[in-house]
Amino acid sequence: MGDIIEPRTLRGFRDSLPEAELAKEEIQERLAHRFRAFGFVPIDTPALEYAEILLGKGGGETDKQVYRFLDHGQRDVALRFDLTVPFARFMAAHSRELTLPFKRYHMAKVWRGENTQRGRYREFIQIDFDIVGVDSAGADLEILLVMQDSLASLGIEEFTIHLFHRQLFNELLGMLGLEDRLGEVLRTVDRLPKIGAEEVRRQLTEIAGEDRAARVLHFIERGSSDEETLEQIAAAVPPDSGALRRLRTLRAALHDRGLGAAFRVDPSITRGLDYYTGIVCETFLTALPGIGSVCSGGRYNDLAGLYTKQRLPGVGASIGLDRLLAALEELGVGRAARPAPDLLVVCMEEALLGLYHRLAGELRRGGLSVDVYPEEKKLAAQLRYAEKRGIPLALFCGEEEKRRGRYNLKDLRTRRSFEALTIQEAADTAAELLRS
Amino acid sequence: MGDIIEPRTLRGFRDSLPEAELAKEEIQERLAHRFRAFGFVPIDTPALEYAEILLGKGGGETDKQVYRFLDHGQRDVALRFDLTVPFARFMAAHSRELTLPFKRYHMAKVWRGENTQRGRYREFIQIDFDIVGVDSAGADLEILLVMQDSLASLGIEEFTIHLFHRQLFNELLGMLGLEDRLGEVLRTVDRLPKIGAEEVRRQLTEIAGEDRAARVLHFIERGSSDEETLEQIAAAVPPDSGALRRLRTLRAALHDRGLGAAFRVDPSITRGLDYYTGIVCETFLTALPGIGSVCSGGRYNDLAGLYTKQRLPGVGASIGLDRLLAALEELGVGRAARPAPDLLVVCMEEALLGLYHRLAGELRRGGLSVDVYPEEKKLAAQLRYAEKRGIPLALFCGEEEKRRGRYNLKDLRTRRSFEALTIQEAADTAAELLRS
Repeated sequence: MGDIIEPRTLRGFRDSLPEAELAKEEIQERLAHRFRAFGFVPIDTPALEYAEILLGKGGGETDKQVYRFLDHGQRDVALRFDLTVPFARFMAAHSRELTLPFKRYHMAKVWRGENTQRGRYREFIQIDFDIVGVDSAGADLEILLVMQDSLASLGIEEFTIHLFHRQLFNELLGMLGLEDRLGEVLRTVDRLPKIGAEEVRRQLTEIAGEDRAARVLHFIERGSSDEETLEQIAAAVPPDSGALRRLRTLRAALHDRGLGAAFRVDPSITRGLDYYTGIVCETFLTALPGIGSVCSGGRYNDLAGLYTKQRLPGVGASIGLDRLLAALEELGVGRAARPAPDLLVVCMEEALLGLYHRLAGELRRGGLSVDVYPEEKKLAAQLRYAEKRGIPLALFCGEEEKRRGRYNLKDLRTRRSFEALTIQEAADTAAELLRS
Repeated sequence: MGDIIEPRTLRGFRDSLPEAELAKEEIQERLAHRFRAFGFVPIDTPALEYAEILLGKGGGETDKQVYRFLDHGQRDVALRFDLTVPFARFMAAHSRELTLPFKRYHMAKVWRGENTQRGRYREFIQIDFDIVGVDSAGADLEILLVMQDSLASLGIEEFTIHLFHRQLFNELLGMLGLEDRLGEVLRTVDRLPKIGAEEVRRQLTEIAGEDRAARVLHFIERGSSDEETLEQIAAAVPPDSGALRRLRTLRAALHDRGLGAAFRVDPSITRGLDYYTGIVCETFLTALPGIGSVCSGGRYNDLAGLYTKQRLPGVGASIGLDRLLAALEELGVGRAARPAPDLLVVCMEEALLGLYHRLAGELRRGGLSVDVYPEEKKLAAQLRYAEKRGIPLALFCGEEEKRRGRYNLKDLRTRRSFEALTIQEAADTAAELLRS
């Protein structure tokens, strides 16, 4: 036989055990149903692509984190590190076959060789949804509504989607004569949650002087209401700001939709420098502010410029499934179905296996999940199996029961027995016991 | 801007467009529900593992097909090429946390750098289900029943699961004094569908002489009924054959279950040399014999011997999703839902977007999939979008309709209009039109 190989996984990679995997499967299924209800359609792209496609001709900052290698044909290939870049390549390749505006979702694994010391994983599932081919308030609105609907569909009751428009920040800096310092100012403001207001003020003062630092800090402060926040912004940007008009349109439409309370205008949301050009948004759970945003996104004005001359504006958002799962776990909501069947058909005689499976088939028709013990073993061993797996009910059938066509059902939690039931009666009784 | 990068994918890799992806998603969802109804639970494992784990200390025949490279930490890693090897490692790592017998399913991508000239893909989805920790007829039976149930749940009506026991072939060769030639004989018999009976006879005669070649060929021929086939086998193997007893037990149980007609004892099913030690099975579609087996499997007596001293016997089967999809397509069954929403809310005025989404939300509550056009555009453009996407219904609401709370519905297929409906009436009418 030789030596045993230690059954280890790579650092930053994990097995998904049944309970966790069932939760993931159910969340993805539920979200897919909601996305489809909004008219979104699924796509998939290869996990492996030409490195040039994923990284551009130069190779950017993510470069070091990317799993990249030469394949058998000496092609320079890499594992996808997000779903946005492959989507851009996908749109460039297929835009003629697709109807614009194109609304897609994509739920898939991505890989990043990140530092695992901060509890980061190197393989995780992303859930992205986007509307491409149109730059309109209507598309922005729909992404915001899908974000709201998705989280609500998972049983999360209290959350707020913070919303801003990237252009407004640029306009403020223009008014302050700070266009040239945009990068520095943004990076400083971005660190606000980490370093605190005083340190941000100190750094901004260094960059722009005390007065302008105060005006930037005032700008990113939320008012006591969205109306007040919008007034503060209006006072700081040009009077004809299209970005402000877009933000007001969205705000009004969210109210008309009856969901105003779930959204908040928040000028401190900037979401980095390069990618977003329009609205930006992040989602915070009321009960768990510390875990950060569980769903974030925004508008970009040119999705696929690397691969096509066709200009494809879009808006979208992304859910990190692992963070979301951790949140649901902590909130104790949206619990997955038990990873155990509802009922065990005990195997009293191997010669009756065909009958056991016929009975199991009839019980499943009523929606029960049914396990048949796969061998004739001592009853105690079979009941121990049921207990370990958390199976609440058991059905018993020996030669005598077979002859009479009457079976015995037992609730293993209460040890209550129900005897001489037809299979239909057993199904009904089981359903009732499971509801209680 | 620089040069445009050609948006190509790697040879052997494909994008999955909405229609295909929706079909995949629905099949996986339906199968997962069936697996769970049988008490199976899902797991997942990393796509990337230590090469030593996936290939063993030597590295086997699959070696050349495996995507293998050094990661940032100079670890020798590889992409999984099937779901069996990772499952073996998983069981060795987690068997203490799991209850045996353990019934799992796993639906995931695998990668093989195969020759793409025969229409093979280098990335594909496998669907595996296994029962581990018990060697019993009951577990064999359950895998066979899950195979049958899975395919039936997808709407495939006519198929046959061919079934045999690997040990019986070994016993035949023992009776003929050919134990030492097992490998050669098996390989020759395996090529029967490709090279034909006459060539197999010629080659077997070379290996074993004319008489024994004839007896091998007679052995692998099916009788006119399972009873006859079993009698032929009984005449060729030792009278106390446990393998034959197992096969008879399964055959009887399948009949008792009422599903005898879906299965056939077939001594020509051997499924290669190394892995399987008990029952083996393959599934053929009556209408499409040429595409080969859509679901195959068997029993192995030691799943995880490379990684643990614990002996873990098991039985399982595997579905290749791509071949199955191609089959469903050709059969025209199990068609996925249209990749289009049921209804488009036309955007007549941007100022009404919030209302449009409120109406869409109410229509979705009744189970409709509803798209809202994301900008105010000429009606003709919006209807062209609906037509291209195949959206059958449209809802219209301008200022006048808003004031009255009455909306207009149109069936775009028949051009029939329904005017001044409440939103509930519109939902009911839409549901009715979609049923017709």
